[in-house]
Amino acid sequence: MKTYTAITVPTQFVEANGIRFAYRRWGKPGGIPLVFNQHFTGNLDNWDPAVLDGLTPEREVILFNNAGIASSTGEVPSTFAGMARNAEAFINALGLKQIDLLGFSIGGMVAQQIVIDRPELIRKLILIGTAPRNMDAGNGEGHITPETASIFGAAYNPPENLWLKVFFTDSEASQSAGRSFLKRYLSRTENRDASINEKVAPAQIAAVGEWGAQPGERFTYLKNIHHPTLVVSGNHDVIVYTVNSLHLVQNLPNAKLILYPDSNHGSWYQNHEEFVFEANRFLNT
Amino acid sequence: MKTYTAITVPTQFVEANGIRFAYRRWGKPGGIPLVFNQHFTGNLDNWDPAVLDGLTPEREVILFNNAGIASSTGEVPSTFAGMARNAEAFINALGLKQIDLLGFSIGGMVAQQIVIDRPELIRKLILIGTAPRNMDAGNGEGHITPETASIFGAAYNPPENLWLKVFFTDSEASQSAGRSFLKRYLSRTENRDASINEKVAPAQIAAVGEWGAQPGERFTYLKNIHHPTLVVSGNHDVIVYTVNSLHLVQNLPNAKLILYPDSNHGSWYQNHEEFVFEANRFLNT
Repeated sequence: MKTYTAITVPTQFVEANGIRFAYRRWGKPGGIPLVFNQHFTGNLDNWDPAVLDGLTPEREVILFNNAGIASSTGEVPSTFAGMARNAEAFINALGLKQIDLLGFSIGGMVAQQIVIDRPELIRKLILIGTAPRNMDAGNGEGHITPETASIFGAAYNPPENLWLKVFFTDSEASQSAGRSFLKRYLSRTENRDASINEKVAPAQIAAVGEWGAQPGERFTYLKNIHHPTLVVSGNHDVIVYTVNSLHLVQNLPNAKLILYPDSNHGSWYQNHEEFVFEANRFLNT
Repeated sequence: MKTYTAITVPTQFVEANGIRFAYRRWGKPGGIPLVFNQHFTGNLDNWDPAVLDGLTPEREVILFNNAGIASSTGEVPSTFAGMARNAEAFINALGLKQIDLLGFSIGGMVAQQIVIDRPELIRKLILIGTAPRNMDAGNGEGHITPETASIFGAAYNPPENLWLKVFFTDSEASQSAGRSFLKRYLSRTENRDASINEKVAPAQIAAVGEWGAQPGERFTYLKNIHHPTLVVSGNHDVIVYTVNSLHLVQNLPNAKLILYPDSNHGSWYQNHEEFVFEANRFLNT
């Protein structure tokens, strides 16, 4: 059997709910696969190959574009509940009965909704750079931090330099890690994913607004998520404020927190060797 | 050479600064020893044997009673700066040129002061259940949390059941871990340390008040502590609020945070296998 890497793994397609989902699936078979939920405006190529290639020797990983993203058909819903239903249809279409679930940033919000909808489907949960409903976003409009609005509102040349600001701190060490990440991100040169269309960002922004505005007592829904959970963030995450990770582990019944030093929203890319070690250990035990 | 455990290691004495310090030193020699700074009212026996016996296969550990505590002579100063000076005299008296430093609770406050006083002496730092100056203590008088005042103000039968409330949450699992800890704590039956006298608690309480009341901009002194630091707390620490650990890693230049689930001030005793694994890994790399 051919051994793929993040760079060589082909894109496959599966149909469910009237949507043709693009996905990539590879790694050591026979165990419980780890399904990845992507960040704002990201497609199949936006995951860090260093993280993926560190995890696949020990488990299968499954990346997918949710409905309306890049090479997947359909429309992006304007709520994470809607995105979760589509993700669940995708997981069902692959015939999976139990998975581990990873969500990064807004992907972590989708992941929380999936585990609420389908607790029996999930064994363990990894939430990275994300937040509970009714999160802290400073005084940002639409429950988006002022830094997020400012960073995503600026122009970058080349465009991918956006991620140096989103994922890394301004320190020299973090920016250097960011440039290494960009090289890895661009290292898949054949069969890259399609671009996202102009409807993706507005729908995802609407979903963040809805997620931030939940009425009622804060964080109570988290008490029902009993799954072993690993929460990861940077100590200076300006996209999804770090304190939200504290809210998660103070309200989830069984969640451990790791915060990495001198790191922003892309803490796990900056510290990919540490993250791979700790994620494999968490998932293997 | 005889192999000691936390239960069998003898107490030794060394004189410095006019104080006769009681200490215990054992474990794998030849590397950098790890020096422990104890919590409120604790003596040499209050460290968890499970943690100690998990660390000593890979390094030397040094426990000591600071001045005025239990079997050490002298007076307990009413500031952590004073306690740090005594600790430094003890470390000098052992002829140590470089150490790793661990501080638990108020011991973590002393440890911060030692690293500020003697940065070249310290290689790596482990801060557990502790707080920076000007910490968050709710509306507690003297910068002591209301829960601390209430828990230490109650009577317990047997007296050591105090630690079930100080170190563990009210959950069944945490209380069960607490009962296991108490067994370990009591398992040294010969050559236990002396009791503390009635002057210890007031002096330590005064030091907490002084630590909490620092004037000026919050947390700036932490920017000068560049040492690799591991910060550990429980997700529900009511003795030193968990948010103080977030303050530490958001202001120390090179600090990683681990928060354990369903745990209070004694998170590392409740999760001693995890802690030993992670502390050995942090110190060995």
